[in-house]
Amino acid sequence: MILKAVKIPVKVGHKFIVVLNEKTAHMLDVQPSDRVSVRNGSKQITCIVDITEGHDIKDNEAALYVETWNELKADKGDKMFVTLAEKPESNRYIREKLDGKELSKEKIDVIVRDIVHDDLSDIEMTYFVSGCYINGLTNEETANLTKSIVEHGNRIKLNKKIIADKHCIGGVPGNRTTMVVIPIVAAAGITIPKTSSRAITSPSGTADTMEVMCNVTNDAKKLQKILKKVGAFITWGGGVDLAAADDRLIRVRHPMSLDPKGMLLASIMAKKYAVGSTHVLIDIPYGPQVKTSTLASAMELKKDFQRLGKMLGMKVEVVATRGDAPIGRGIGPVLEAIDVMSVLENKPDAPKDLLKKSIYMAGELLELCGKSKKGEGKKLAAKLIESGAALKKMNEIIDAQGRKKMPPVGKLTHLVVAEKSGKITGVDNKLISHVARVAGAPKNPGAGIAIERNLGDKVKKGDTLYTIYAENKQRLSNAIVESKAKVYIIS
Amino acid sequence: MILKAVKIPVKVGHKFIVVLNEKTAHMLDVQPSDRVSVRNGSKQITCIVDITEGHDIKDNEAALYVETWNELKADKGDKMFVTLAEKPESNRYIREKLDGKELSKEKIDVIVRDIVHDDLSDIEMTYFVSGCYINGLTNEETANLTKSIVEHGNRIKLNKKIIADKHCIGGVPGNRTTMVVIPIVAAAGITIPKTSSRAITSPSGTADTMEVMCNVTNDAKKLQKILKKVGAFITWGGGVDLAAADDRLIRVRHPMSLDPKGMLLASIMAKKYAVGSTHVLIDIPYGPQVKTSTLASAMELKKDFQRLGKMLGMKVEVVATRGDAPIGRGIGPVLEAIDVMSVLENKPDAPKDLLKKSIYMAGELLELCGKSKKGEGKKLAAKLIESGAALKKMNEIIDAQGRKKMPPVGKLTHLVVAEKSGKITGVDNKLISHVARVAGAPKNPGAGIAIERNLGDKVKKGDTLYTIYAENKQRLSNAIVESKAKVYIIS
Repeated sequence: MILKAVKIPVKVGHKFIVVLNEKTAHMLDVQPSDRVSVRNGSKQITCIVDITEGHDIKDNEAALYVETWNELKADKGDKMFVTLAEKPESNRYIREKLDGKELSKEKIDVIVRDIVHDDLSDIEMTYFVSGCYINGLTNEETANLTKSIVEHGNRIKLNKKIIADKHCIGGVPGNRTTMVVIPIVAAAGITIPKTSSRAITSPSGTADTMEVMCNVTNDAKKLQKILKKVGAFITWGGGVDLAAADDRLIRVRHPMSLDPKGMLLASIMAKKYAVGSTHVLIDIPYGPQVKTSTLASAMELKKDFQRLGKMLGMKVEVVATRGDAPIGRGIGPVLEAIDVMSVLENKPDAPKDLLKKSIYMAGELLELCGKSKKGEGKKLAAKLIESGAALKKMNEIIDAQGRKKMPPVGKLTHLVVAEKSGKITGVDNKLISHVARVAGAPKNPGAGIAIERNLGDKVKKGDTLYTIYAENKQRLSNAIVESKAKVYIIS
Repeated sequence: MILKAVKIPVKVGHKFIVVLNEKTAHMLDVQPSDRVSVRNGSKQITCIVDITEGHDIKDNEAALYVETWNELKADKGDKMFVTLAEKPESNRYIREKLDGKELSKEKIDVIVRDIVHDDLSDIEMTYFVSGCYINGLTNEETANLTKSIVEHGNRIKLNKKIIADKHCIGGVPGNRTTMVVIPIVAAAGITIPKTSSRAITSPSGTADTMEVMCNVTNDAKKLQKILKKVGAFITWGGGVDLAAADDRLIRVRHPMSLDPKGMLLASIMAKKYAVGSTHVLIDIPYGPQVKTSTLASAMELKKDFQRLGKMLGMKVEVVATRGDAPIGRGIGPVLEAIDVMSVLENKPDAPKDLLKKSIYMAGELLELCGKSKKGEGKKLAAKLIESGAALKKMNEIIDAQGRKKMPPVGKLTHLVVAEKSGKITGVDNKLISHVARVAGAPKNPGAGIAIERNLGDKVKKGDTLYTIYAENKQRLSNAIVESKAKVYIIS
């Protein structure tokens, strides 16, 4: 039927949506989430139907959100030809996954294609996530999902025999080893492109910390150029769109915090596959306060990563590390960046735990890539720091991405002191992250926490445990309130 | 933070939604589908967050759809206080269902409450449906879901020892036995309130057919009055809101056509429980073309219904009937209403199959209610038709609901004739329904199909198989095209 175009001045994301009133929907015989084909002149697209219950949209009107309006090159009052359209092919395969069937490479590819083309509603994507979560994904499905995500996203193509990568499953506050490992490995002459995430529920992601020193939003073309010039980058993954389907799936996974294992693996490995990684080191911190609670489950995940790596033609090494205390001194973008630079600058007061873990990780990766003999990687890594080669490389990376002046640390501070003497037998990672976030990290880059005493240290009553940094009074006083909770256990 | 109110002139259903731009969302530290508490003066509500990617909504603006705008009594430019809010309690229990746990009565009740209060997003409801679909619902969960749906919906309360009901699982074109059975049973002095659905994918639902003769949108108060006066009604269930939670769940089940068994049972039985039914007859047509394909699966479903009935304190009888051919002559609202009235009027040319099945069903229900001895129900049912008592009751029902003049059958007709002589060995129910819908049913009430020959009949080449009725030329010619497919198999 012919409907008159009306604009809704809101962008809703990528999906094409047409809003009809109930009477028009009844005439067209459509229900919410059904599809219609909408034609305006020579432009034709498939839209998902929303039905409004009121009289805001008149009979014979089709209301379009901004993206749909623009795509159809609509003008107010344009007459558009609207007809019932088929469901996307992927619906059938999502249903099969709900019914516990294993999906072929082709079927997974159709689902991923429809996700990237924004042909699926949130409801349909949620059914796919549910099916993968409850029924699981086989190894083949996981590998095919990874490949499809890459094939339907941007890629960075390099003509290199060895391309390294390093990934941490996360969950440990202040754990900025990536920003030390990348320049070390790059200084050894290995190409190592690194895309990172921003903080979602933590006080800072690698991308947030890197961002206080340089630009981290770069497209694939620019990144390819940087890589040719300096052999490495540390950038925000979201700006490159290496895994567009994954970003959309994460959005519907978020409300229920669902991590279907196969999707988690595909999500991580797709970003490596998309940049052509050949040698990948994965750090799985384990402990009661991080995602992976025991060494046994870390070892289980190790097998999964190595199996998937093999299916994708990558060499994958996995190290399980203790995740029961923060690493480094700072928690929050600027405070963490200061830690990273002091390690690379080989300063005597650089946090020793961050230095040690970075050298260990870099050593493993250098060995994996064949840059040093088994057991000698750490020595090479330490040498690259001591010689200043890693620092030089980091500065090249920062300059290539576009150096920025680092903001100052928060001007307002508060010391949290030990209420009794004894030994620190526990640090609540989640609570300490929470306090740093309440103080303003990562939105206020100078906000966060500087740790003075860590797990295992002996303290006297009145000793400073950590310092809270904030950029404004309200944030500081809120953080002080939150810090009353048992962040440290002293016994 | 303080945000300025902006109105989006569209109703989106019941949910409260606030749209923020990316920067504001980042400042508030919220992601899509997170909740915020929004306070405007003394009004405070919890809203689900949508994030817009463009610049249509400015920094520090909160854009509200009509329902949210009204609920907050907002005026353009009002300053509203927006803070991060907790997820609804039910999220945890939905996650438990996804993880395969059995939910307690209390947890199911919280989920249903949050659904009815529109506190859950479509994504969250979809996760609940997925969990129920893949992991199944235990008998206890199904009974508790049924009860919770009823407790959080409207009810009709009557002081009667026996309240009967009759339900058909559906799928058979023209099967309007309900409209014959209800007046028969009511004529026997039994209270029988009947809520029915409208057509979704069929050419007519009982509510659509009834609607050509009288009003079918009535609220609970009016229905209670009708029931007291005439002892029965046949109305559209959607108008009474007996199962508000169910209606919302059906909306997210629709895109994937998911019928989790426990939800299907709860959906049907909640509507009986809400009107206080004590004796329920359920008709399960089976055959290759209906939902229940075999007698064995019908018997399986019978057990499920009876078990659930017992848990709810109802007597449930289930009959499995053949569903491999249309019943009655007409398919489409007016054509079916004509069939029903001709049966009740005891006309000699009334469709014999509809009469026979109605008497059988009514007989079973009369026996179940103790109105006649075992084996004598059919005799009583036939008598109530022959005596005109059932017709009289039907007219009372129609008058009480508000009689309307029946529209005429479609003026345009087309005869579909046998292409060869032989015996009709198959009728494609789905195809015949499709042709009736293409002809205009149920939107054009006079449109549809009148069957002249049915399964098992012998025909000669050129004999009329069925007549297509339409209200306009375009519809008729479309239906003629569709009727070229093999609706009848003659061999």
